[in-house]
Amino acid sequence: MTNFSITILGCNSAIPNLRRNPSAQALNINGIHCLIDCADGTQVQLRKFKIKFQKINHIFISHLHGDHYFGLIGLISSLHLLGRKNELHIYAPSQLEKIINIQFEASETVLKYPLHFHYLHQNKTETIFENNIFSVKAFPLEHSIPTWGFLFKEKQAKRNIKKSFAENANIPNNEYIKIQNGADFIDKDGKIYKNKSITTNPPKARSYAYCSDTAYFEKIIPIIKEVDILYHESTFAEDRKESAKEKFHSTAKDAARIAKKANVKKLLLGHYSARYKDTSPLLEEAKSVFPNTELTDDGSVFNIES
Amino acid sequence: MTNFSITILGCNSAIPNLRRNPSAQALNINGIHCLIDCADGTQVQLRKFKIKFQKINHIFISHLHGDHYFGLIGLISSLHLLGRKNELHIYAPSQLEKIINIQFEASETVLKYPLHFHYLHQNKTETIFENNIFSVKAFPLEHSIPTWGFLFKEKQAKRNIKKSFAENANIPNNEYIKIQNGADFIDKDGKIYKNKSITTNPPKARSYAYCSDTAYFEKIIPIIKEVDILYHESTFAEDRKESAKEKFHSTAKDAARIAKKANVKKLLLGHYSARYKDTSPLLEEAKSVFPNTELTDDGSVFNIES
Repeated sequence: MTNFSITILGCNSAIPNLRRNPSAQALNINGIHCLIDCADGTQVQLRKFKIKFQKINHIFISHLHGDHYFGLIGLISSLHLLGRKNELHIYAPSQLEKIINIQFEASETVLKYPLHFHYLHQNKTETIFENNIFSVKAFPLEHSIPTWGFLFKEKQAKRNIKKSFAENANIPNNEYIKIQNGADFIDKDGKIYKNKSITTNPPKARSYAYCSDTAYFEKIIPIIKEVDILYHESTFAEDRKESAKEKFHSTAKDAARIAKKANVKKLLLGHYSARYKDTSPLLEEAKSVFPNTELTDDGSVFNIES
Repeated sequence: MTNFSITILGCNSAIPNLRRNPSAQALNINGIHCLIDCADGTQVQLRKFKIKFQKINHIFISHLHGDHYFGLIGLISSLHLLGRKNELHIYAPSQLEKIINIQFEASETVLKYPLHFHYLHQNKTETIFENNIFSVKAFPLEHSIPTWGFLFKEKQAKRNIKKSFAENANIPNNEYIKIQNGADFIDKDGKIYKNKSITTNPPKARSYAYCSDTAYFEKIIPIIKEVDILYHESTFAEDRKESAKEKFHSTAKDAARIAKKANVKKLLLGHYSARYKDTSPLLEEAKSVFPNTELTDDGSVFNIES
């Protein structure tokens, strides 16, 4: 079984404190390591939760509020000081490139590894990364500045040919792939084997959606529909729903409503306001709408089974 | 007795790790709180070592290598989010203002408090701050990019008039100040009281010098001469003296040589390379040249008695 895991590196909003760091998450999809957001202090969180810096090749920045990216310049710089040679890809609002470059100009740093920026386009839902294992889609959220959510979706694996059949049927190579793709098999005597009788279903393609920061925003529902895990910000509880509205954030109940309407399998809450030292009221609120909700905490790991 | 204390918030060089954060120090001089340098993660260090963010009014940035300032944007931003109203003064290389501004433009942030930048001038030793309690001088160090050291020097207090004399001699107000400044006193009968017989010495003016990052650089000696405490970077031990030279850093022995030639009272070592998990060899090396040397560690506090 291949990996599809999410490690929460920070689940606070706005300001780091001794219990919770602001937004950052590490994803491992079949050995490909991604980072989503990178608040101040994320480097220390990566060390704390034993994620190897140099394995990260793709960094997705949702928007340019500091609690989602102030730690990036330090991480890029540390990778350089640690002797990185491999490419690093940053998917972010276009201004970030200038912000990074101006700082390396000031320190007269010439990076030892290639750093590639891929700009997110305003008001546009688009695939921003794709390989043979998974794809990443960016989609607009509803926040006070341009902000994107990210959908990580595994590619559908091919059908598994039953071992007992494969060993005895003498399948030519070119036929093998066709069967994996769903074709029936005709042996040299003309006997037809229906695909369903000689294959088993492949593991289901897994998916994860990250939605932070955003107000309650129904336009995301068709995009995140039926994902295995939805991380949706829940900065506030319903007691502060006016604050949430005013600041383009969500309450835990808002997050649960979106989860329910999108028929996701599991909802994770996070991006908590520092006022909630105890986050259990947020959980209770969300569960009243969408029972399969969990709280995140710094260091929580969520695996999606195949 | 008034305060003059230094709290080490980070004593590592280059990269934060779980034991040591990079450069930052908090100074409290008679209730005026200053920060020297502000590496990534300094906000969390401030919380950890119980230094109140909002009390800091002056921030001194030695140079624009990230391990000395990447945490500043986050701190400025947090002060804003926490509702600061008071002025904040930043003393730094001029490019820093642009680096800060471009990030607030991206986040569409308009700070709720006045932020004043005071530029450090290349190759120039000058007083950059002064009030009735202390002054701060910036002076050039020898590093790979423009870098300044900082000298914090208390103003010399006036002489203390002996209590027994003050109570009986009926000193007019205008004469009182003259005596504090060293004048003799003549009473209404023409009797002369020598200043030394009616006053005691005031507490000695205290001083602290921060020198990081720098190669061995004798030009600083006249500036930091006889300070109570000298913090001098010691990135390497003598085993790596070639690396130190090449990278414009100092060894612990270099730091001790400067301390000895400047006849300072105490030397503090810091800005350690991550290769020295055990820093005691650095201490031994420095002590062989300058015995009154101490290691710093994150959270160490040094008080200068008056």
